[in-house]
Amino acid sequence: MQKPIIAGVGFTKISAHWKSSLKDLASEAALKALNDAGNPEIKAIVVGNMMSGIINGQENLGSLVAESIGLQGVPSVKVEAACASGAAAVMWACLSVLSGIFESVLVVGVEKMTDVTDNEDMSSALATAADYDYEVFFGATFPSLNAMIMRSYAEKYNLSPEDFGHLPILMHKNAVDVAHAQLRFPITMEGYLNSPVISDPLKLYDSAPIGDGAAALVITSRDGAGNLDHAVEIAGFGSATDTLATYRREDITSLMAAKLATKRALSMAALEPKDFDIVQIHDAFSVIGYLNLEALGIVEKGKAHKFIASGDADRSGALPVNPEGGLKARGHPVGATGVYQIAELALQLSDRAGPSQIENPNVGVAMNIGGTGANVIVHVLRRIE
Amino acid sequence: MQKPIIAGVGFTKISAHWKSSLKDLASEAALKALNDAGNPEIKAIVVGNMMSGIINGQENLGSLVAESIGLQGVPSVKVEAACASGAAAVMWACLSVLSGIFESVLVVGVEKMTDVTDNEDMSSALATAADYDYEVFFGATFPSLNAMIMRSYAEKYNLSPEDFGHLPILMHKNAVDVAHAQLRFPITMEGYLNSPVISDPLKLYDSAPIGDGAAALVITSRDGAGNLDHAVEIAGFGSATDTLATYRREDITSLMAAKLATKRALSMAALEPKDFDIVQIHDAFSVIGYLNLEALGIVEKGKAHKFIASGDADRSGALPVNPEGGLKARGHPVGATGVYQIAELALQLSDRAGPSQIENPNVGVAMNIGGTGANVIVHVLRRIE
Repeated sequence: MQKPIIAGVGFTKISAHWKSSLKDLASEAALKALNDAGNPEIKAIVVGNMMSGIINGQENLGSLVAESIGLQGVPSVKVEAACASGAAAVMWACLSVLSGIFESVLVVGVEKMTDVTDNEDMSSALATAADYDYEVFFGATFPSLNAMIMRSYAEKYNLSPEDFGHLPILMHKNAVDVAHAQLRFPITMEGYLNSPVISDPLKLYDSAPIGDGAAALVITSRDGAGNLDHAVEIAGFGSATDTLATYRREDITSLMAAKLATKRALSMAALEPKDFDIVQIHDAFSVIGYLNLEALGIVEKGKAHKFIASGDADRSGALPVNPEGGLKARGHPVGATGVYQIAELALQLSDRAGPSQIENPNVGVAMNIGGTGANVIVHVLRRIE
Repeated sequence: MQKPIIAGVGFTKISAHWKSSLKDLASEAALKALNDAGNPEIKAIVVGNMMSGIINGQENLGSLVAESIGLQGVPSVKVEAACASGAAAVMWACLSVLSGIFESVLVVGVEKMTDVTDNEDMSSALATAADYDYEVFFGATFPSLNAMIMRSYAEKYNLSPEDFGHLPILMHKNAVDVAHAQLRFPITMEGYLNSPVISDPLKLYDSAPIGDGAAALVITSRDGAGNLDHAVEIAGFGSATDTLATYRREDITSLMAAKLATKRALSMAALEPKDFDIVQIHDAFSVIGYLNLEALGIVEKGKAHKFIASGDADRSGALPVNPEGGLKARGHPVGATGVYQIAELALQLSDRAGPSQIENPNVGVAMNIGGTGANVIVHVLRRIE
């Protein structure tokens, strides 16, 4: 089977963009990606976004984004899978290219989160990723659900508070020299341990920040990519769901859908976990980052903190994880995050990642998660030799 | 090229379903469609929905719907294109089947609109289909934008108020014997003319009602459909966008995206407008229904009302239009509407439409519109001989 090719990459800095609208952010990322791809003829557009209807009073983002870059006329729709909306949009593009219907597709992930002035509104908007009838209605927030997973994981594998600190500390270290990252400052173990508790035992420094951003990709066929030096192959993708409500899972410390999605993506790519040279995990909360590493088949259950603490996940380590700082420090504009992950992987696999570049990676994987593990999409990328 | 096949169809009655949640409605339609298709193995699910985040406090509908029918594990995402979300979900399924990645896809369109108790909230939710920054912020509602189109069209082609009444009168007549329709009563021209003005010159009886409903399809490959007698082919589909804001169009009385989407769908199907035996138009407002007929190449500009008045669009006419009553009387649960249209076409093309069955149709077309013409998706279905 011919594989879809990433021909162009673009993104905005992640920040509180007070002067830019949702449309401005989407356009900036889209135009950068189109330019990077050599401005091919785009046959369809797909937008990954979670909350624009709630926060920005705007649905119909397909039309909005198409028009904002002068491409009205081109087919364009929005895809939503909570915080996995970005990867769901990339999957739409892959299916389209493989179908032969749309040869070149522009993917835009965008989220403008700082239009909300009331913290409670943002908490409600993010909680739409959980089960309204059985969780949110009874007062659960998205952080509180993740706090339950963290407590359960800590008790099951006997983890100390310090053990959870290794991941955010590495993420902040990685983001310091990344121009598009939101939180470009290092944190210490002491700072981590003293950071405020959001929902016991979840601390502020376990949690990804609120931010605005957009990322874009041009995905095309092998022919559509022409002779572009920096083209990267999407060797495989896999997707799976789990129960929406966290409590309905047999074991909340194990992400069933993440394991299933990984298995499917690896099967399509005809690769194994040992082939990974670089990993993008969905570290919206420290514990979820650890569960990602387990589901990807990289570490044993309960051992993720040791893997991070060992230095193996550093940029210069055996298997670098989130060299741009991950959701924790690069930032997490929710519907855009999956596109950022894949854009960053594509730059790494074409040696264009700048200060965060790791040495000569050939295969990379990105895991994007919606809800507390309810919707997982995994993409495996490969360098084109 | 192998065409996608509709193997199963299911839907709920459209109504104010006070006792059913979004999940209940989606499950009912999905299980009916699965049963109708002979319960094949579903490889992916796609949900068409516009407003669940705003109205129901629930995103991540892919996971919600998968779990609600016991299919957690299966990949599942939501697609949004305002009131064209349903057809956008069907397009996702077609691309998936054609890609060879997911052989059998369950499509569920669902909208639960009556959870809102404040009319202003519903008006705001529906207005997210328009341009927030340039229309809604300045006070435009979705009906007021359509009223401007209606006024402009009436002046350009010299239409009287009576001329707009022919379409809703036919729609109400058609819905009377349709079990799943929302408004099962006939209306007269006098009743139409005396109905309250919503936004001058738009009347109540020009406007589709608010309702809850879900419709579902099983879309599969030719092999996946096996020997099902009632299978129907999706011969072509086409999609296009226009400017999101109505005022930015050169001519607001002509739906550019609808024409483009029709052209693309017919090109893929290798058919022409003269091949249509039955038509499903998006009559959210009477004038939009007329513009649909023009864009589909069925009538000349400004002549749609004469076509409807002539009886040619009746169930027994030369080219039946919306024999189940259309958005106006069958109902318009927005994100589900595009799936209802295609489900009803599939029943007609397999002679299973009950009282609304027309005589021996071979080719049918459905036009689904998001915004005031900003996002249009057209599907052309054909009977399998």
